[in-house]
Amino acid sequence: MDPRIEEHARILVEWSTEVKPGDMVVINATPDAHELVVALHKEIAKAGGRVVTLMSSEEALRAYFDGASEETLQLVPKHLKAITENCDVYIALRSPVNTKALANVDPKRVLLDSKSQQEIQDIRLGKRWTLSVHPCQTLAQQANMSLEEYRDFVYGATLVNWAEESKMMYVMKEHLEKHNDVRYIGPKTDLFASTKGRIWVASIGKHNMPSGEVFTAPVDDSVEGKIYFDIPFLQLGKVIEGVKLTFEKGKVTDFSAEKEEATLKQIIETDEGSRRLGEIAIGTNRGIKQYTLNMLFDEKIGDTVHCALGRAYKECNGVNESAVHVDMIKSMHKGEIHAGDELIYSKGKYFYERTKK
Amino acid sequence: MDPRIEEHARILVEWSTEVKPGDMVVINATPDAHELVVALHKEIAKAGGRVVTLMSSEEALRAYFDGASEETLQLVPKHLKAITENCDVYIALRSPVNTKALANVDPKRVLLDSKSQQEIQDIRLGKRWTLSVHPCQTLAQQANMSLEEYRDFVYGATLVNWAEESKMMYVMKEHLEKHNDVRYIGPKTDLFASTKGRIWVASIGKHNMPSGEVFTAPVDDSVEGKIYFDIPFLQLGKVIEGVKLTFEKGKVTDFSAEKEEATLKQIIETDEGSRRLGEIAIGTNRGIKQYTLNMLFDEKIGDTVHCALGRAYKECNGVNESAVHVDMIKSMHKGEIHAGDELIYSKGKYFYERTKK
Repeated sequence: MDPRIEEHARILVEWSTEVKPGDMVVINATPDAHELVVALHKEIAKAGGRVVTLMSSEEALRAYFDGASEETLQLVPKHLKAITENCDVYIALRSPVNTKALANVDPKRVLLDSKSQQEIQDIRLGKRWTLSVHPCQTLAQQANMSLEEYRDFVYGATLVNWAEESKMMYVMKEHLEKHNDVRYIGPKTDLFASTKGRIWVASIGKHNMPSGEVFTAPVDDSVEGKIYFDIPFLQLGKVIEGVKLTFEKGKVTDFSAEKEEATLKQIIETDEGSRRLGEIAIGTNRGIKQYTLNMLFDEKIGDTVHCALGRAYKECNGVNESAVHVDMIKSMHKGEIHAGDELIYSKGKYFYERTKK
Repeated sequence: MDPRIEEHARILVEWSTEVKPGDMVVINATPDAHELVVALHKEIAKAGGRVVTLMSSEEALRAYFDGASEETLQLVPKHLKAITENCDVYIALRSPVNTKALANVDPKRVLLDSKSQQEIQDIRLGKRWTLSVHPCQTLAQQANMSLEEYRDFVYGATLVNWAEESKMMYVMKEHLEKHNDVRYIGPKTDLFASTKGRIWVASIGKHNMPSGEVFTAPVDDSVEGKIYFDIPFLQLGKVIEGVKLTFEKGKVTDFSAEKEEATLKQIIETDEGSRRLGEIAIGTNRGIKQYTLNMLFDEKIGDTVHCALGRAYKECNGVNESAVHVDMIKSMHKGEIHAGDELIYSKGKYFYERTKK
């Protein structure tokens, strides 16, 4: 086995979910993640846990949607609820059989199914959970790479010293929390947001692997200015590029996109909350050197910031509500990040990198 | 998709497990069974059930054994217990990733793990459950066939009219139960067993798919005579061939095998119960025309009988207990089956076939 798969498994079990003797562990994986599932079995066994693997498959889900009545889609799957309630650790591996298998399912039906499982999702979030991927052809293809290149990419982002990384992220969180606001300045960009009373969360590889971001929810009416997102992103099956947003008193007052503007419009007009930012964040993972249209990776790219329209996270003290949460990313090589009177990032370096040498 | 996969799924859902609206269905499958899992999702959805799929894998299990302490192997997997308790239907698909992946695991460790899951296995047997396969390379290889040949073989055995088949099996059950004993006569064979007070079970494709056998447990001290099993079978990783057994007062008094006699000896000497027959049966599936070293199929071959050393089934009113249950098969083209004074099978025909035309 590629020793990187074993190392990945070790990180998920030891660092992300901290499996300990007696833990009941659920893995949720597609058939394409089998090799990582094998490696996880060994690591979970060594940690003293018991493991059950759920097989997920976009093709199977599509087939289910093809056959089910609306009534059936609203049934709570109580066997799934039971296994979720009775686990301590939940490891989800996204290695899609086919990233587009659900593209032509009526979104209303997808929503009915999601609603019937909302309660289960909430139970899951109360466990020690993590989300990762296993490199596979479908993700490599979406990333515009061969499988071998994609493997190098995934492990470059993932197999890092998370204890060390987390130290830096905590330092950044501390510095950001000393101040009451944050400002992103750069090409076509000058965005201000108050962060008063908010919590900056250091995402150190517990729930997302890889990780590497520090994020919060802005004060809702405080966002002012404009921002240009130069990194493409995938939403509703479309690749949206070159988004410009202008905010006044927290609300989007003007927007444009170089590609797929209609989709951007659809997102912004989803509901009241989708006109506001639910998240502002700084990406810190220098192991991720390019975008791959997979938000698990893209939002953590080092030397970037990102903002999300829509739902805010409760753990940040965020309040904005929306059916959507859409992240958009901007590279900051030519920009600056300020928090109050402190320069957090400039000239390609975070403040802690400047002081290091 | 091969329409035979869809038909197989339909049989498992409609005939074997009779899925109905509101049923919670668990599928247990290896990654290699993915295509049948997809087809099952559609059929279960159409029947109004909710489905969760467990991923099994011999490679993952081997990795778990490699990592786990004896203490860990004795932990009851309570999350697996919870999902089992909360399901109505359990569909197990055996399409091994590698039939030999567990060959070098210490049997004592396998036993510890099995014991910790005995309670769960008992819960499972109280549900509407079925066992089938999805044609895959490992099973084709074991059967000495290409995958395409093996597909033809599996679907030839499985895609039959089970309602019609079951009528014949019930007729056979009725006739066998009119009498108090059964006798197998043929080359190197004359075996008598009392079946007084026992129930003959017609295996009509509910728990095993394919099926096609009528079986019971003989009265323990009644088995007398000798039998020659001409069809090879796989046990403890060995292919055993040409077994001869002699019985007196229910017990094996003499035995031999043309190949792997030492393994046969090991089986017979397992415990007190492994010296007795726990099952005697008649295979009726004419769709299965050759052995493939897979007992799910081999014991159902038409024009055969089989006997099992060891554990008897409670549903037959059987009482023999043993750690083993080892089936051995004999072709009857040149033999006869008698029940009391009735000729059940002779000259290549079951009694109901003789009366038909």
